[in-house]
Amino acid sequence: MNQKRLERVIGLMQKKNLRQILVTATPSVYYLTGAWVEPFERMLVLYLRDDGTVKLFGNELFCLKPQKGVELILHRDGENPIKALADALLPGKIGVDKTWRSGFLIDLLQSRGDLVPVEGSAPVDLARLQKDDEEIAAMRHASQVNDGVMAAAVGMVKEGAKENEIALAVQNLYAQNGGDHSPEIEITSFGANAADPHHEPSGIEVREGDCVVLDLFNPIHRYWCDMTRTVFFRSAGSRQREVYEVVRRANLAAESSIRPGVPMCKIDRAARSVLEQAGYGKYFTHRLGHGCGLDCHEAPENGPSNSMPALPGMVFSVEPGAYLPGEFGVRIEDLVLVTESGCEVLNRYSKELTVV
Amino acid sequence: MNQKRLERVIGLMQKKNLRQILVTATPSVYYLTGAWVEPFERMLVLYLRDDGTVKLFGNELFCLKPQKGVELILHRDGENPIKALADALLPGKIGVDKTWRSGFLIDLLQSRGDLVPVEGSAPVDLARLQKDDEEIAAMRHASQVNDGVMAAAVGMVKEGAKENEIALAVQNLYAQNGGDHSPEIEITSFGANAADPHHEPSGIEVREGDCVVLDLFNPIHRYWCDMTRTVFFRSAGSRQREVYEVVRRANLAAESSIRPGVPMCKIDRAARSVLEQAGYGKYFTHRLGHGCGLDCHEAPENGPSNSMPALPGMVFSVEPGAYLPGEFGVRIEDLVLVTESGCEVLNRYSKELTVV
Repeated sequence: MNQKRLERVIGLMQKKNLRQILVTATPSVYYLTGAWVEPFERMLVLYLRDDGTVKLFGNELFCLKPQKGVELILHRDGENPIKALADALLPGKIGVDKTWRSGFLIDLLQSRGDLVPVEGSAPVDLARLQKDDEEIAAMRHASQVNDGVMAAAVGMVKEGAKENEIALAVQNLYAQNGGDHSPEIEITSFGANAADPHHEPSGIEVREGDCVVLDLFNPIHRYWCDMTRTVFFRSAGSRQREVYEVVRRANLAAESSIRPGVPMCKIDRAARSVLEQAGYGKYFTHRLGHGCGLDCHEAPENGPSNSMPALPGMVFSVEPGAYLPGEFGVRIEDLVLVTESGCEVLNRYSKELTVV
Repeated sequence: MNQKRLERVIGLMQKKNLRQILVTATPSVYYLTGAWVEPFERMLVLYLRDDGTVKLFGNELFCLKPQKGVELILHRDGENPIKALADALLPGKIGVDKTWRSGFLIDLLQSRGDLVPVEGSAPVDLARLQKDDEEIAAMRHASQVNDGVMAAAVGMVKEGAKENEIALAVQNLYAQNGGDHSPEIEITSFGANAADPHHEPSGIEVREGDCVVLDLFNPIHRYWCDMTRTVFFRSAGSRQREVYEVVRRANLAAESSIRPGVPMCKIDRAARSVLEQAGYGKYFTHRLGHGCGLDCHEAPENGPSNSMPALPGMVFSVEPGAYLPGEFGVRIEDLVLVTESGCEVLNRYSKELTVV
């Protein structure tokens, strides 16, 4: 157990008036225990009480190691893992990790009618929100790797290049540079495909005049990098250039607005205003960004409805985009670290309009 | 909407006394709608009523297309997606997909105190359990690809080979053979690492006398293959040979026991008895296998506590193993398809003891 992190989490439980929580997400369990377990359909629960009681429930296949201060409660395949968990809980309110499988929660509620479930991710999410020194070093390193991968990926945009071939080559580059296996594939979108911000790489070949959106993300020693650049193949039309520059200005406007105390929604607004004033507001269909760390998407949400202030140690993405259905799309994304006085942009790869 | 599958699901809802269910798992939504959406932290819900009402709730970023007979209800980032869902539901019992995020369920229960959630995956899981002709063709094809990938992977077991290099090369082979990106990495374990059935590939090099467990799985056009072979590098000791042959006999005993009507637990028993009689029962620490299809792990559970009978069209794994802590491990896994009269083993790659 990382005692310093545990103490922060318990402090946040008290602040949120939560006496007991179930921590179940793989990265959250790792954050506190150092054990990385992908439980899939099996049960993994780190049970925390505000008095410092810590119990770890898992399948013996997870090969969990005993730790000081943690009671380890194992089950085997074929046993119902909910029983031992149900026996351990205090009556009343229980905080539940938002990603826990509903099947487990429903089972638990059926065997313990005295429990009142509430969303209980906040204490760990809020602790994870402000990265400690070890985590900041990991995030900087991951984005540094990503700068190199982006340079290589842009170099692959040549006659005959296919979306899915670039995506695969990028995966190999990550693996060769300390990357963990990613549950998700990168987004590499050419031309009109780029109007879908979540396009899945296809076998399409790049054509002259295509925009090429490279949204490259991968965990590097557990911590994620995530950067998007948009380049143009052989030529860029005047509308493409115009949209590109508006998106770039939106990215820069948002980044220059970041310092401790500024609400997240104002950072989103800084970018969105640039797009709206240029007449592209309706083509920016998503929030400005998301927190990033042990999860690619984590707190804080960087969007219009989050009034939480930026805090030193937060890392989140700034990724304005404009998506013109049937035509093309542009997105420019950096990860930024909030510092004591402003922000540090973790990605150094150029944002100048580039025709390759 | 695949109407035939929808009708089967509605029939199963009626049988399970479920008037309404929330289908949320990506493969289940795909099974019925043909739309493959990875929602991550956003909400995707296919709401089904036993009167044939179908509503699909999703974020507009998912690019869902209108379909006949389906009411499409979209939300944008920043809007609370639970509100429209809560408005659509009948009071009382509601079946909930077991993998749905608890955060959504808790939100829903807080805004609709009249709902009684129960585990509601069964109708879709039971429909998916018996593959239709299109799915059987896809499963056969996927395992055929896997036979080729396994042959290539065994060929990579040479002086200097590393666990993680073989895993990466295998991923590339899948990608070059119609494979989708896999959320998980293959299991490639050398020597004592193979005593952990879920070992993550490391940078360790193969050494003479190592067992090499190759557990290779990937979706091919959405349907998974999954096969394990264990080979030995340069030499195999007498204990390794003994354990290998016991595991191989367990695999064959289970496969020869499969036909419609045989309870899953008896198939598990057929393999487990062989291991127990040879004195290795305690080293077989997991269930015999798992259903496989649009999910790598799905119904039916092939284990000691499942009394469900095998049915034609089911596809599941048969994967006995023996794990000797600190020493080595052996696992031999096939996917099998239950036929009208017995079973078809989908993997053809040899199970003879092999020293490479």
